[in-house]
Amino acid sequence: MNTTIEELITALRNVLPENQVTINQTILEQHSRDESYHPPSLPDVVVFPTTTKEVSNIMKIANKYKVPVVPFGRGSSLEGHVIPYNGGITIDFSLMNKVLEIRENDFLVRVQPGVTRSQLNKELKKYGLFFSVDPGADATLGGMAATNASGTTSVKYGGMRDQVRDLEVVLADGTVIHTGNLAAKSSSGYHLNGLFVGSEGTLGCITELTLRVYGIPEYILAARASFPSVNDAVKAVVSILQAGIPIARVELVDEHSMKQVNMYSKTDYKEKPTLFLEFHGNEAGLKQDVEFMKEIVANHNCESIEFETDNAKRNQLWEARHNLAYAYVRGYPGRKLMVTDVCLPISELAGAIEHARDALNSLGLTGGIVGHVGDGNFHVLLMIDMNDPNDIKRAEEFNETIVMYSLERGGTCTGEHGVGVGKQKYQEKEHGKALLVMEKIKQALDPNMILNPNKILKMK
Amino acid sequence: MNTTIEELITALRNVLPENQVTINQTILEQHSRDESYHPPSLPDVVVFPTTTKEVSNIMKIANKYKVPVVPFGRGSSLEGHVIPYNGGITIDFSLMNKVLEIRENDFLVRVQPGVTRSQLNKELKKYGLFFSVDPGADATLGGMAATNASGTTSVKYGGMRDQVRDLEVVLADGTVIHTGNLAAKSSSGYHLNGLFVGSEGTLGCITELTLRVYGIPEYILAARASFPSVNDAVKAVVSILQAGIPIARVELVDEHSMKQVNMYSKTDYKEKPTLFLEFHGNEAGLKQDVEFMKEIVANHNCESIEFETDNAKRNQLWEARHNLAYAYVRGYPGRKLMVTDVCLPISELAGAIEHARDALNSLGLTGGIVGHVGDGNFHVLLMIDMNDPNDIKRAEEFNETIVMYSLERGGTCTGEHGVGVGKQKYQEKEHGKALLVMEKIKQALDPNMILNPNKILKMK
Repeated sequence: MNTTIEELITALRNVLPENQVTINQTILEQHSRDESYHPPSLPDVVVFPTTTKEVSNIMKIANKYKVPVVPFGRGSSLEGHVIPYNGGITIDFSLMNKVLEIRENDFLVRVQPGVTRSQLNKELKKYGLFFSVDPGADATLGGMAATNASGTTSVKYGGMRDQVRDLEVVLADGTVIHTGNLAAKSSSGYHLNGLFVGSEGTLGCITELTLRVYGIPEYILAARASFPSVNDAVKAVVSILQAGIPIARVELVDEHSMKQVNMYSKTDYKEKPTLFLEFHGNEAGLKQDVEFMKEIVANHNCESIEFETDNAKRNQLWEARHNLAYAYVRGYPGRKLMVTDVCLPISELAGAIEHARDALNSLGLTGGIVGHVGDGNFHVLLMIDMNDPNDIKRAEEFNETIVMYSLERGGTCTGEHGVGVGKQKYQEKEHGKALLVMEKIKQALDPNMILNPNKILKMK
Repeated sequence: MNTTIEELITALRNVLPENQVTINQTILEQHSRDESYHPPSLPDVVVFPTTTKEVSNIMKIANKYKVPVVPFGRGSSLEGHVIPYNGGITIDFSLMNKVLEIRENDFLVRVQPGVTRSQLNKELKKYGLFFSVDPGADATLGGMAATNASGTTSVKYGGMRDQVRDLEVVLADGTVIHTGNLAAKSSSGYHLNGLFVGSEGTLGCITELTLRVYGIPEYILAARASFPSVNDAVKAVVSILQAGIPIARVELVDEHSMKQVNMYSKTDYKEKPTLFLEFHGNEAGLKQDVEFMKEIVANHNCESIEFETDNAKRNQLWEARHNLAYAYVRGYPGRKLMVTDVCLPISELAGAIEHARDALNSLGLTGGIVGHVGDGNFHVLLMIDMNDPNDIKRAEEFNETIVMYSLERGGTCTGEHGVGVGKQKYQEKEHGKALLVMEKIKQALDPNMILNPNKILKMK
């Protein structure tokens, strides 16, 4: 193998400037892990392309030497997506980080894959625009497309797949394709945008994205509502949705997690099951919606509700919510994060969260429950002691219980984090014979199985 | 071939009741055409399955005999999608026309593919719900999914692909799969929902659909606004969108087409370029939006604007719009309909429509221009004399001019009608090397090329 690696590196150095190919141990280690409990594994080499042409050349070499290729954004994945368990080449996209074009009249933006969410929003603000997908982490847009990320705003604006108009993708053999166009809709040919979004680097490498953006709403109203129980809070959300009140964000944070929020963000929010809500629209419309909403939450035993129109205070509120995962990580030094990510039909959500809480209790685990409850998606955050095999075992047992509950009720094992290696074992149960179709597509597009191997699908 | 056909029919009669397999000439002829100018071609046999199991058995036989299979809904396609140019088996889904389940709390409905749009909406109304996709024609939901249909409401609610949560699909070898689940979002595995929607029966046969539905809005306001020119009307729409006013529908009908509307629907609307608009929301919000919108249209030389909140009158207005294609067909007896269907980024729309009008004039053609202008999608309706080769030639030349204009500006050759046979010649220009990816997927999933052959992709 060593000779091959040497040959490989020589070949890479032939197509890339020297400082863009590295086997520096520290850099290899930085690319050996993500933000989750999944064990690290080193790539053989890390490359930092600056152009699509360079990516294409890298891929041609990888395909020739039949060496795995793992695309890497910020490493904020939660299911081991970027961990190179089979070694090979990690392509770090941090040098491809330019906002290439803002077509403000078309509500479109064209970016390189290494642009982060916050970087893009900073640029867009100058035009009165914003990018809607907000997974919490300041991930790269390439990474977010690769996992079909979503988050707090998807209840109104949808996830990544809903924003992608076109991708430039480098295929396994180095061919460069475009998967879409700039039109708002199309019925021309197979929906390759949708196929490549969420394919986690297993079908190709994204080198450019054209994304839909939105005008910053005329009026934004945020609210924080406390409830005596998680069940009341969830039922309030279901009622709000059923009343047809258009929510832009709705997040559930349970009492346990509110405590973490307060500790980490130095806030003094009530340590009760809480909904963080946001509404986008015009002032008259929102006022009418909010009156209706107040009645609904009152019917579900809401104990207090506070509104926030001030921009800075609203941002503080959402920042507290976004910092939650980090709050847990900081609160449990030495432990690793495991996050469940099921998503169910909304009518099953209250039952699923109750089931999760019971399962936590019966397994003697400590975990916080938070969720994008407008989508039927919730997370249980577990802090695992990786030195305690029993702790790992219980956490995995818990994860499996949660997933099975969801799959039996028409849900999915992952609403937004993706499969990576962590959710692979549930793919057959979730997709049945459709998994064979996925395998055929993978084989057709990556016959040498070099693209992020053993992610999503297990190679046979 | 005749012996094979006889064998085939015997095999089909072994798995289907006798009255579900027919070679009756009238029925073959009914399945030889769609609503367009594309020349008819007879299937060898038409089958009427009632269950997924029957469809699976039909497919196994087709695959064994390597005989083409064409799924057929209502035959309302506009690009020859359902015309069996290679003969074989046409599967008519008219007996699979049941609404199977309405999950009102989940805003989901499960239907068989032969259910029509109006049939579904009639059922949903009892629950205060509606299905949003409205292509005009009362097509089947299976057919609408197969072409990724959209229409008047997609500016707010999206097209078919945005509504499909799950499909039951019978693959080429008879295997039955499910492409999705009931959750609002998922990052689990490849996005097969998106791949099968819009695949026009070339990857599998849809035997069941789970679709997203919406609550009937609290308040609906419709408007009809006349402008001195198409250009003014289009620019008004672009300004309304840029102002962030949420339109639920916006249709442009040019002066020529308004005349057809009046003749056919016995209305006395002004025969001027007209926008048909609709807004969904709460009363207070809409009132504020409408005040803003009035200012915007006035700035674009709007000559008159009339509002309609009355349900019956609103329906009359939309019925007039929907009847437009039929108005043309009736207005030109003996001629056949050719409809262009490009979709462009919204900033290119005004120029594209102006270009289309100029091209009509310079080719000496008569045609009406209408469009889902909120999406950047417009149609030119041409009535062709199929006995005049010169007329056909000019119309095809026109179509090509329109498509090239769109493709050069980041648009698509078809916003909602699909490729069928009519838009096949533009696929390479539109998709470039991505077409090779589509071909690989087709080969992987349909190695015997039996599924609606020579639609979308040309077989080699």
